[in-house]
Amino acid sequence: MSGPTDMADMVSRKVREDNLDRFCRQALAAAGADEATTDAAARAMMHASRLGVDSHGVRLLPHYVSVLIGGRVNGRPHMKLAGGSAAVATLDADDGHGALATFTAMEHAVEIAARLGIGAVAVRRSSHFGAAGAYALAAAESGFIGLATCNADSVVRLHDGAAPFHGTNPIACAVPVPEGRPWLLDMATSAIPYNRMRLYKSLGVPLPAGVASMADGRDAVDADDAEMLAPIGGEFGFKGAGLAGLLEIFSAVLTGATLSFDLPRMVGSDLTTPRNLGAFVMAIRPDAFVDAETFGNGMRRYLDRLRESPVRPGGAVLAPGDREWAEAERRLADGIPLDPETVAGFEDLAGRFGLGLPFDPGGPARSSESTNQEETKGESR
Amino acid sequence: MSGPTDMADMVSRKVREDNLDRFCRQALAAAGADEATTDAAARAMMHASRLGVDSHGVRLLPHYVSVLIGGRVNGRPHMKLAGGSAAVATLDADDGHGALATFTAMEHAVEIAARLGIGAVAVRRSSHFGAAGAYALAAAESGFIGLATCNADSVVRLHDGAAPFHGTNPIACAVPVPEGRPWLLDMATSAIPYNRMRLYKSLGVPLPAGVASMADGRDAVDADDAEMLAPIGGEFGFKGAGLAGLLEIFSAVLTGATLSFDLPRMVGSDLTTPRNLGAFVMAIRPDAFVDAETFGNGMRRYLDRLRESPVRPGGAVLAPGDREWAEAERRLADGIPLDPETVAGFEDLAGRFGLGLPFDPGGPARSSESTNQEETKGESR
Repeated sequence: MSGPTDMADMVSRKVREDNLDRFCRQALAAAGADEATTDAAARAMMHASRLGVDSHGVRLLPHYVSVLIGGRVNGRPHMKLAGGSAAVATLDADDGHGALATFTAMEHAVEIAARLGIGAVAVRRSSHFGAAGAYALAAAESGFIGLATCNADSVVRLHDGAAPFHGTNPIACAVPVPEGRPWLLDMATSAIPYNRMRLYKSLGVPLPAGVASMADGRDAVDADDAEMLAPIGGEFGFKGAGLAGLLEIFSAVLTGATLSFDLPRMVGSDLTTPRNLGAFVMAIRPDAFVDAETFGNGMRRYLDRLRESPVRPGGAVLAPGDREWAEAERRLADGIPLDPETVAGFEDLAGRFGLGLPFDPGGPARSSESTNQEETKGESR
Repeated sequence: MSGPTDMADMVSRKVREDNLDRFCRQALAAAGADEATTDAAARAMMHASRLGVDSHGVRLLPHYVSVLIGGRVNGRPHMKLAGGSAAVATLDADDGHGALATFTAMEHAVEIAARLGIGAVAVRRSSHFGAAGAYALAAAESGFIGLATCNADSVVRLHDGAAPFHGTNPIACAVPVPEGRPWLLDMATSAIPYNRMRLYKSLGVPLPAGVASMADGRDAVDADDAEMLAPIGGEFGFKGAGLAGLLEIFSAVLTGATLSFDLPRMVGSDLTTPRNLGAFVMAIRPDAFVDAETFGNGMRRYLDRLRESPVRPGGAVLAPGDREWAEAERRLADGIPLDPETVAGFEDLAGRFGLGLPFDPGGPARSSESTNQEETKGESR
């Protein structure tokens, strides 16, 4: 939404969706993933890459291959769902891929909600699941309100804190809209995403106030001094820290997973030991509360009024998801941009596993469209 | 947490809890409220006044009396709960007091969660319910995780917006903690509470950046120029606006209540017409997901680590609720402070209904304790 020009300067390829999806599947299968894992992980990455959330898109593929091969993630898990006739269930994900675990959990939450109006599933022994929005959206595509959250590497300080504590603990919610794309919120509870801090660093641009801190907890201005992120809210960061805590309790305490500050790091720790990440999903059937017509009319009126709401100078008023759905349209037409590091990672995977690349290996280092900043600014928020 | 010295300069009386509670009950009954309404409204106000959330405490009593007498709020409602065997229910609150509606809804959500692990109740035809934390806490006191939200007067702009749109739409969550007070988050999704903006105005103190806007949506520095609040998050206010939207959808769309921007104002509109406010509550039974010992140990470890987390210079690290529980201890010992406007309102009620005041009418205009700023800074966050 603001900040430096994001990945525009780093794009070196644009790739058609179907080619990219195929390459992800081939690489995951070559790394030993079973069909369900392959499907789920590719679906989650492609969700993010389609909608412009590049930090959680196909750039994760080389990492996922490494942890599948290393053994941290079990590519052939036997996940165990328990719950009986209740409106809640637990999923022991057998250290499988977080995408398979969380799609499985949401599918079950939707089944419960179809019967009982609401369903919730707590996931333990899971792993990195990418963009939370993928799972919320899966519910909305079936006509349900979906909520998804997880815990994550400890990189966000408390309000007035001087040490990393919570993960960027995201919350995603998707709400079905009649004759329209779902309302789709997918946000981290840190002031900015971790990758955005790295981007400020690589661009040498000063950080906005109150988004990251030095080792003693004071605001970092120079991204090189930043040791941790701040919670949402700046001087009112007790709200962001409170929300991160709420999501930590749901994702890690209520699931019996490992708390964020006890997790080994996603990158830089050994690739053989499972991390026991947690996740929590919920599905709600709107017409269990109010008739479908009233619900649909309510969403329409809410969104109509939002989109016609007065705008401040230089701004734009958007509903959550509006930017992402527009980006998905552009990417469907123009291809999905890949940054140079991801291109190099893909070339490595292609060589290791004897796969065809999803782009022309001798192609231009930078496509003509790639200067369009809007098309390539995507990043988890 | 920050900002000007809040209500310290405005305190004119300190009153014992039991006297204050009795006066609230007498005034509500005199205004025609039935016993259930009287109990619920007094309980909600006393919750806020005990915990230091004075904006939602007993200062609301004269307003509640006015709307009961005016007819906007039905003091003898026949609330209708519908839901059958599902994990969800709806409550038609018959235009009754929001506190009675929401305690009733949470009580039912807890009953459902006791059976099915989770329960949710959508409330329509409700009215102002005070502090959301009162209802979340009611669940936690029974050993359940409680969540509560509502919509409210449209006073918060969208991200990049230039008109009031959402209410301050609060979210509250309470989580039971073994041998301790519940973890208790109760926060508005506006950058600051509405009453804090009024306070900056009355003190003539400049506003922090990004918390309130002028009519064209640009930041207000002088509180006199402020026409609306900003969503949480400052330049990343799309997160706060997204959360406000999520709570609006749950509180107003899913309930069939009136959207915030369609509501007549709480103050300044006629006192005879019901407003059809919405609320949404949820209860979760932790041991439906994980055994009670694991859950308890998880909460303990989470809170222990939080409270020993390094602090930045001049700061203090607190769990949500820590400040409020400490304030409740102080107020139990020292009394609950009343601002002059509330004192005048109480004197008026006492005269109208022939009630004994909860404080000595000839007492000092300001007690010796009332200069302790900590004791009187309370306000909804």
